[in-house]
Amino acid sequence: MTTPVQQAIEFLRGEFGTRLNTNTAVRDQHGRGEAYVQGFAPDAVVWPENTGEVSTILQKCHELRVPVIAYGAGTSLEGHVSAPRGGICIDMSRMDLVLAVHAEDADCVVQPGVTREALNTYLRDTGLFFPVDPGANATLGGMISTRASGTTTVRYGTIAQNVLALEVVLANGDIVRCGNRARKSSAGYDLVRLMTGAEGTLGIITEATLRLHGQPEAVGSAVCSFAQLRGAVEAVIELIQSGAPLARIEFLDEVQVRACNAYSNLSLREQPTLFIEFHGTAASVAEQFERAGEVVRSHGATSFDWASDEQRRSQLWRARHAAYFAALGLRPGCECVVADVCVPISGLAECVAAARREIDAAGLIAPIVGHVGDGNFHVLFLLKPGDADERARMERVYDAMIDHAHSLDGTCTGEHGIGLGKRDKLVAEFGAPVVALMRRLKEAWDPYDILNPGKVFHTT
Amino acid sequence: MTTPVQQAIEFLRGEFGTRLNTNTAVRDQHGRGEAYVQGFAPDAVVWPENTGEVSTILQKCHELRVPVIAYGAGTSLEGHVSAPRGGICIDMSRMDLVLAVHAEDADCVVQPGVTREALNTYLRDTGLFFPVDPGANATLGGMISTRASGTTTVRYGTIAQNVLALEVVLANGDIVRCGNRARKSSAGYDLVRLMTGAEGTLGIITEATLRLHGQPEAVGSAVCSFAQLRGAVEAVIELIQSGAPLARIEFLDEVQVRACNAYSNLSLREQPTLFIEFHGTAASVAEQFERAGEVVRSHGATSFDWASDEQRRSQLWRARHAAYFAALGLRPGCECVVADVCVPISGLAECVAAARREIDAAGLIAPIVGHVGDGNFHVLFLLKPGDADERARMERVYDAMIDHAHSLDGTCTGEHGIGLGKRDKLVAEFGAPVVALMRRLKEAWDPYDILNPGKVFHTT
Repeated sequence: MTTPVQQAIEFLRGEFGTRLNTNTAVRDQHGRGEAYVQGFAPDAVVWPENTGEVSTILQKCHELRVPVIAYGAGTSLEGHVSAPRGGICIDMSRMDLVLAVHAEDADCVVQPGVTREALNTYLRDTGLFFPVDPGANATLGGMISTRASGTTTVRYGTIAQNVLALEVVLANGDIVRCGNRARKSSAGYDLVRLMTGAEGTLGIITEATLRLHGQPEAVGSAVCSFAQLRGAVEAVIELIQSGAPLARIEFLDEVQVRACNAYSNLSLREQPTLFIEFHGTAASVAEQFERAGEVVRSHGATSFDWASDEQRRSQLWRARHAAYFAALGLRPGCECVVADVCVPISGLAECVAAARREIDAAGLIAPIVGHVGDGNFHVLFLLKPGDADERARMERVYDAMIDHAHSLDGTCTGEHGIGLGKRDKLVAEFGAPVVALMRRLKEAWDPYDILNPGKVFHTT
Repeated sequence: MTTPVQQAIEFLRGEFGTRLNTNTAVRDQHGRGEAYVQGFAPDAVVWPENTGEVSTILQKCHELRVPVIAYGAGTSLEGHVSAPRGGICIDMSRMDLVLAVHAEDADCVVQPGVTREALNTYLRDTGLFFPVDPGANATLGGMISTRASGTTTVRYGTIAQNVLALEVVLANGDIVRCGNRARKSSAGYDLVRLMTGAEGTLGIITEATLRLHGQPEAVGSAVCSFAQLRGAVEAVIELIQSGAPLARIEFLDEVQVRACNAYSNLSLREQPTLFIEFHGTAASVAEQFERAGEVVRSHGATSFDWASDEQRRSQLWRARHAAYFAALGLRPGCECVVADVCVPISGLAECVAAARREIDAAGLIAPIVGHVGDGNFHVLFLLKPGDADERARMERVYDAMIDHAHSLDGTCTGEHGIGLGKRDKLVAEFGAPVVALMRRLKEAWDPYDILNPGKVFHTT
């Protein structure tokens, strides 16, 4: 007797031929992502090429009660692509077309497998760009599903503020459209924002309409160092409050700066450091830089350097984007757990300082970086693979970070999502009744729990 | 035998004493709002003073299956406060405290009955302000529930982008908190955005944490006239694309300018007109003004006047805010139906021009205003009370406007909501399967359909 998942695979092999794969290596890779939690392999991976094919997969899996997990670029960090109950992984990489660019309206329509870099390459000559930048070259479908953000959120918002409409395949295979191309709407429940960050548990995104922004006329960057973390954070608070339209304001602690100096061949002071980017007209960028200089110096900056030319600027931001790889270089052969919390900015200095103290007290190696304008920071824990004691110490430090964030009315995840890894933290954050509300919603829309089951919250 | 609603009233009278009222005039007033759709009176109005009291009301009404409708300032336009099945109206006006202002984090915590003007008066000396400005002095609870926006959305976003957290009383009286004070979060389904715009059908908002913004250092305003509507809209498209950080960009058609000249004692050219506001440093406001001047002139502006002093600026914006009353002045004794659609900006000129043609062809009097940076515009239909033929002609024009918006992938409501008035339009916009999804969500959370029943979509 064949199991339901075997029946599904048999059906899908008939439909998709060589676009269905059950090789162990392929399945393992698709169940893993970049998460530190355990990766479970799906039973098969299938590569649809259009919405109708996604609908076909869902119809059959719905009929057979087989789990379905969407897969983008595999860059998620909390086990979103893991298949703890097996099932069918839908790899979106062949749905990678930019379907339309509406330059006058500053929006575009993409398939979910388009990556953020591919989109910006496509847009290069339009005068427009898509600003959301989580670092990794994730797919847009994945970014929407995890409610991604990153370095530019302080100016352009998270991806939630940059999605206008979605085409979604529901659990039973029905194809629906939520939202439209109007810049705003009060028409009914905001299903676009509900699907955004739902981690594939409410539907599979097959098309997205995204907001674009005008490429800034001028871009300027600056780097400034502080003797004390507190000065850096207070400078950020004042800059944000002043309404300065900063495009990025990133924090690197002294450990991370050391790593970046080594990895990216820089010679920055090994002190708490801010990387700032300004967008605007040439005159306004110059004015912003001057104002920012006054602010950071009044908070004890020990240096404030203008990255005057394009080459220097791109060197700095490449270094920031390579922070993860630079961190790995601090401990060759290690694995990295990227922690993610977000707090009201008034509590940020205290939170980062406490994390640093606890990291050091636990004898761990872990640089800290942060999207400091949003109060979001990451600890990059560098762990010896298989060292259970070290892992346990990491978990204690990470738990304390999250408790600290919660005590300040912050969140256990600014941008990485819940996945498998943080389901208990979600309950700690909102309480069981709120998670029960989410679960009731999920049950109403996906009664057989086939859409990425076990993610966001425990299901039976 | 007493009916359930009589039992509820009896119970609530015991709890609330004189804070419960069943007078006809009070009930009528609370069922009406400012909607053009028919107002149905609730059976009683009750004035709670804290969240616990709201919970008490809900528990009893849940037990007895009695409808509950929240009421803010009664400024909604689509029948949101109407009680077609009777029930208990909860007037939030006594829950009007600003509970906290966190200046460093640029956020505040308010009760739902605080009005937007009261909040900004409270914030006056903090250097911060709350930017969302729908015109009317609505309560913040009402603004959240209808997903309000208004003149400043182009710069500061709608209210959905300015709500961080909510306390909500659910259908059964449970009190939950969604969101937190972190600037962003990927923690589970975004219930804050789901409650925002749900029109009181999913829960009753009893507390809100809102984003604030730094008061701009300098503010500048300009008025420019165009011989043709198309030039005005093309100028707006170019201004938005250039990334100019406009704070407001409002359109008034020639009929509305005439009304404003008469009502607010201005002498503007009676042509399609833009009111623009710039926020920034003094230097950047001056630069923005200069740039904007170049853009509007290249699109055929016949005048571009700088409102140089505070007095002139405030006169202009008072005139813009009084557009509704100015419009009423065009036809003394009339009633006004404010139509609301929002389209991709590339279709705006065509949509506004078509509306004007159809208004004139139907022999109606109706000025047009628009939050043109968002593609959102309003027709202010001035109708003779009780004239069924005129009303029918208005409805035909309004239907055509919405059809036109839908044909451009726009929305039947940019900022007023669905209420009773636009339920069929919601189906036209998204299709029955999407509205069915909304209904299933509602049923999962409010199985007895006691929360503002019959709003957003038809329920049985």
